[in-house]
Amino acid sequence: MRYDQIFSDAISRLHDEGRYRVFVDILRDRGAYPGARCFDAAGEARPITVWCSNDYLGMGQHPEVLEAMEAAIADVGAGSGGTRNISGNTHYHIELERELADLHGKESALLFTSGYVSNDATLATLGKLLPGCVIFSDELNHASMIAGIRNAGCERKIFRHNDLAHLEALLAETDPARPKLIAFESVYSMDGDVAQIAAICDLADRYQALTYLDEVHAVGMYGPRGGGISERDGVAHRISVIEGTLAKAFGVMGGYIAADRAIVDCIRSYAPGFIFTTSLSPVLAAGALASVRHLKASTDEREGQQAAARRLKSLFRAAGLPVLPSDTHIVPLLVGDPIQAKALSDHLLIEHGVYVQPINFPTVPRGTERLRFTPGPLHGEDEMKALTAALAAWYFPYRMPIAA
Amino acid sequence: MRYDQIFSDAISRLHDEGRYRVFVDILRDRGAYPGARCFDAAGEARPITVWCSNDYLGMGQHPEVLEAMEAAIADVGAGSGGTRNISGNTHYHIELERELADLHGKESALLFTSGYVSNDATLATLGKLLPGCVIFSDELNHASMIAGIRNAGCERKIFRHNDLAHLEALLAETDPARPKLIAFESVYSMDGDVAQIAAICDLADRYQALTYLDEVHAVGMYGPRGGGISERDGVAHRISVIEGTLAKAFGVMGGYIAADRAIVDCIRSYAPGFIFTTSLSPVLAAGALASVRHLKASTDEREGQQAAARRLKSLFRAAGLPVLPSDTHIVPLLVGDPIQAKALSDHLLIEHGVYVQPINFPTVPRGTERLRFTPGPLHGEDEMKALTAALAAWYFPYRMPIAA
Repeated sequence: MRYDQIFSDAISRLHDEGRYRVFVDILRDRGAYPGARCFDAAGEARPITVWCSNDYLGMGQHPEVLEAMEAAIADVGAGSGGTRNISGNTHYHIELERELADLHGKESALLFTSGYVSNDATLATLGKLLPGCVIFSDELNHASMIAGIRNAGCERKIFRHNDLAHLEALLAETDPARPKLIAFESVYSMDGDVAQIAAICDLADRYQALTYLDEVHAVGMYGPRGGGISERDGVAHRISVIEGTLAKAFGVMGGYIAADRAIVDCIRSYAPGFIFTTSLSPVLAAGALASVRHLKASTDEREGQQAAARRLKSLFRAAGLPVLPSDTHIVPLLVGDPIQAKALSDHLLIEHGVYVQPINFPTVPRGTERLRFTPGPLHGEDEMKALTAALAAWYFPYRMPIAA
Repeated sequence: MRYDQIFSDAISRLHDEGRYRVFVDILRDRGAYPGARCFDAAGEARPITVWCSNDYLGMGQHPEVLEAMEAAIADVGAGSGGTRNISGNTHYHIELERELADLHGKESALLFTSGYVSNDATLATLGKLLPGCVIFSDELNHASMIAGIRNAGCERKIFRHNDLAHLEALLAETDPARPKLIAFESVYSMDGDVAQIAAICDLADRYQALTYLDEVHAVGMYGPRGGGISERDGVAHRISVIEGTLAKAFGVMGGYIAADRAIVDCIRSYAPGFIFTTSLSPVLAAGALASVRHLKASTDEREGQQAAARRLKSLFRAAGLPVLPSDTHIVPLLVGDPIQAKALSDHLLIEHGVYVQPINFPTVPRGTERLRFTPGPLHGEDEMKALTAALAAWYFPYRMPIAA
């Protein structure tokens, strides 16, 4: 059996398609974010600006978050030492779940080790608990939702992205007696477009379906208290399960769901991906708690981030760059080829100290390879102009340069 | 559609079977481990001793680990802010992977957010990469391995627990031309028994199978450098993939695999559960790095833990308690009924300040419900004697009490 050959062939295929991934080795600089150090193969570090982090608001370096983590280390130590059921349930977990339930106006919340796991475990378990369930899934749902829906083992129907007529057609053709679940995202992370949540809830009411909303790219960032697009649109109470992350705008790590008490209790009691894993470190729970509380009260970070996104989009458009339409804080720039996307990313890093990762298949469809910028409240005007000039010089090498 | 009814029925079933789980709300006390505080419903705290943690060696409170975490917070902040590919790859991750590869004598290692995810993602991806693969799985493999094997979507054959004749019969009946993978654990966590790794490797050689070994309850604890049972037995080089955790003996959080470069590169490149999730917080990576390094050099913790386990087993046996046979550090005490197991656990907590969680179905088979003690180097002789006396008084209420 030529196992070595099989594995090396699998790697060769990636090289041939130009989508073999090389991880850039960085360390962020506390207090200087989005500044960071980038290490080359020889271990030499040089300064860069990070333009592709999902720590959208810089909360991963917020003093309140870091102080809370330091206090937890001093109080209880590093890990939790067990599953939630076997010695791994701490006061930090309980308080954080209360805070998250409140953030979304739900009775309960439940922590997971990641947003990926929260989607996978919850969707799989919902599908298994509802006999004969049909899951209706947006075609651009995240890999973790797809994993959960597959693991549910029930029938699934894929609707065209944000296409409500298609969703309704699929709902209408399905036996009214069968349980139904509509699974979708609020902000789609690679295009930055937004679901029509209220209209989907109307369909859910009409066809008696549960709704499952992934808000990982929206929590902390939209709504008066950072409750996401569902809070901004005043529809959180109409969603059966809201799923979020602590690893993006909240700047830490971990995932969660918020829902009615009975649903949360079922997931807590039946989901292997929740039951059989060491709980989140109390240090992370403490940091996330501080972050959620801060962003409930403070709107500065959200407003700064929205302003930065508007400004960068307008600079890109003015320069004639192929910025993809986006309703949100995400600024995708089309390249359309994996090798070119990687080459542009390398050029920006080496020549300009700009770190933005190429986004290739399978994260986005082939032919739509892109750079994805996530400007935040800490990216300055000068940095944005320098970035725009560097990109314009790459896209339009024969045009007169823009003054930076 | 009566969704509420379906969910509340699912919860009622758990109550009816006596296996509805109530999480005990605790905080460990840094520096006083296994001492902790337990909170009641009113939020009042009282002191307890933790007897069921998987922080087997107390490394979750080791000064070197906590100092490394504090230093990482000071240097880079809280979360990584992205997947490993998109700004979430730090120097801490790279160094920790190097250290783990070295620990197991392998070319490469790969971090995951948890041991659960490392099993699920790796086994599923291996099964998908090997066309026509058959996975041979020990019947007592952990839920996360079962999840990964199911998600692999290939044929699976379950062999009776640690039964090599049965494994060989299944291998022999399988087409020699098909790829094969034998998936098993070194230490089975609920019984504390150990696999015959060398003999399984002999079978793997004979039938040209890959081997996948879960060492989560052994890394840090067995072998001269804490490389697990495979290091102790001198067979690590014969295993294709060794999987471990940073959340038990290493005291922090996260999981990993160690293997040949090509295998690790394939998992890194093809496993959705690795690709599409925010990387481990650099704070956790820093803590785990310090813990792995410490336990490579220091044997005090391992020896202390083995001595404590031997001592507690001998006290239990001398008192006539139904301690289940165990070759390792795990001390399971049979109860045999979920309601009695919960009642005994509650009694110990309330009357004796002893915290040990009942282990019920689905973690163990029905009828084998138990308490599972994990004595460590920090549990003292007096605490062990008091625990034994408290248990004897429960099991044998009409016998004369043992002097504590």
